[in-house]
Amino acid sequence: MRAAATDATGERPGTLPGPYLLFLGDVTEPAFAKTAFGLRDWAPELCVGEYACAGGTLSLGLPVLSPAEAHARGARSVVIGVVNPGGTIQQSWVPPLVNALEAGLDVISGMHVHLEDIPELAAAAARHGRRLIDVRRPPAGIPTATGRKRSGKRLLTVGTDCALGKKYTALALARAFRERGIAADFRATGQTGILIAGGGIPMDAVVADFESGAAELLSPDAAPDHWDVIEGQGSLSHPAFSAVSLGLLHGSQPDVFVVCHDPERKTLLGYPDYPLPSLEETIELTVLMGRRTNPAIRCGGISLNTSRLAEAEAERLLDATSARLGLAAADPMRGGPRFDRLVEACLAAAG
Amino acid sequence: MRAAATDATGERPGTLPGPYLLFLGDVTEPAFAKTAFGLRDWAPELCVGEYACAGGTLSLGLPVLSPAEAHARGARSVVIGVVNPGGTIQQSWVPPLVNALEAGLDVISGMHVHLEDIPELAAAAARHGRRLIDVRRPPAGIPTATGRKRSGKRLLTVGTDCALGKKYTALALARAFRERGIAADFRATGQTGILIAGGGIPMDAVVADFESGAAELLSPDAAPDHWDVIEGQGSLSHPAFSAVSLGLLHGSQPDVFVVCHDPERKTLLGYPDYPLPSLEETIELTVLMGRRTNPAIRCGGISLNTSRLAEAEAERLLDATSARLGLAAADPMRGGPRFDRLVEACLAAAG
Repeated sequence: MRAAATDATGERPGTLPGPYLLFLGDVTEPAFAKTAFGLRDWAPELCVGEYACAGGTLSLGLPVLSPAEAHARGARSVVIGVVNPGGTIQQSWVPPLVNALEAGLDVISGMHVHLEDIPELAAAAARHGRRLIDVRRPPAGIPTATGRKRSGKRLLTVGTDCALGKKYTALALARAFRERGIAADFRATGQTGILIAGGGIPMDAVVADFESGAAELLSPDAAPDHWDVIEGQGSLSHPAFSAVSLGLLHGSQPDVFVVCHDPERKTLLGYPDYPLPSLEETIELTVLMGRRTNPAIRCGGISLNTSRLAEAEAERLLDATSARLGLAAADPMRGGPRFDRLVEACLAAAG
Repeated sequence: MRAAATDATGERPGTLPGPYLLFLGDVTEPAFAKTAFGLRDWAPELCVGEYACAGGTLSLGLPVLSPAEAHARGARSVVIGVVNPGGTIQQSWVPPLVNALEAGLDVISGMHVHLEDIPELAAAAARHGRRLIDVRRPPAGIPTATGRKRSGKRLLTVGTDCALGKKYTALALARAFRERGIAADFRATGQTGILIAGGGIPMDAVVADFESGAAELLSPDAAPDHWDVIEGQGSLSHPAFSAVSLGLLHGSQPDVFVVCHDPERKTLLGYPDYPLPSLEETIELTVLMGRRTNPAIRCGGISLNTSRLAEAEAERLLDATSARLGLAAADPMRGGPRFDRLVEACLAAAG
């Protein structure tokens, strides 16, 4: 049995040094800056400013700051908020990142490539005593799950597929809980969520034997009326990623889950031979599997991603879904009374 | 997307260099030599001889050979067939293992500790151009699962818990299939099974995102009437290890599964608050989850571990279980007509 992890700073596993300066590279297309926009929209208090290099035309509307200026305003790290088409760190991004290390900032990346594998960054970090932090790397020493029931309340967003709104739904619910005066933490399980939350565990990068243990570590014992709102991953019905989803479900022990779904999607993203599971089937599987570690698990409602529908059509679909399943159904991005009802239904479902 | 793996020799991922010389260290208790006995019993054709160091009193009844003699008889590696109470490689074992490297043998270990972390072994391996192989390390570059239906037939042993006979059941079924003239491979998913099979993937050590991909890699396309008999891991109802079990189930796409169970066990091993799931519940969950990647999945029968029961009691229990579920039930270690019926039921279940 290994001991629970603490990182080099002795902080909670996966806690990131914020606030951030957002690095935009030389990107010109907003589509390549989803992480930066997500941080600006969901964690504005963590975003001190933005910083681009020659050729970059994008702006988040934040103060444009040099690394030294950002450090003076309290920034503790620079976050790579963009990707390039190859998913790599371009050579032209390296000198500005070295500048940030010289100015006393750590560098944080959510990319697959490891920062330490870039010799100039490794050397500059060593020279200035700064850290290179890859949020796609899980903390060391994750223990095996115990299955012990933890105190506090938990909500998990689950999905009929990947990439259809589990992170945004969890963020919106956690925010709505807090707006109602309820203590709530968003618990991040993927790289963008981790950057937004300032901590978390990249569940897809954990060794399978420790998957549920990582989920237990992510949402520890808490006050009885405190909520952890946990970002889901994958789908129990996904032929490639179901291991992540089930380990997360068993370790999270959710009292309440919300099913996230894209009504326009007919087959799994990248798996044209796999029809999307129905909402009914997803609810059934989640209850059947989830009750093993929390017999009181209940579905709190449905989150539909209606971003590609006109408002009237979205409303019709949400009403029909709600009536069919007898559950609250909302699009968190549209908000409004439907979303309020989903929030109330989730709070009520925990009993 | 990463490329599929091949190891340094260009062999199939996880293929081990056999036959073996079995190293018994200075062990005196048979309980510490389960791997060596397992290899002798299930893979005698891979076992050229045995080799102990000073103080060892144990024998497998194999020829006692020096590493040089074993190499002359065709051995290609020495396998550490014993554990010590701490799960480490003792200092007294190192010189005999260095001797083996000098004699031209690779060293294979199924222990958690990495062979390369022992400086004398690392130096000797480098000096003699030999390999140090840790079978608990998965191959590099496992791809994401595709979910594509593969040719050939597959059987997966599943369980109500860990450590109750999934490996032995799979080994016994694969042997029985071959005895009936049916082409069959045992596919190993844990360290002891990998040593017995001469290859395989340690599924519990794979990163969760690649768990199903590893299972796909383990049982590739085969002739239509060929069977892969796949060693199960964990349990879908296990609070710590269900991620391994579901990834393996989805990636294996079994046509047939056999549920392994210990009738004497009331709670999960090491989890006294978790009652063992029933056979009925385990069948239901396995069909419900497994049909996602193989809609034709069927339960072939039940394997009961009756090692702690008298024969008459075991027979009564097997009859009662078979009658209750309407399925063949046998203890593969007892063999006999009941086991023959289980074998026939599995073959018939694949249609």
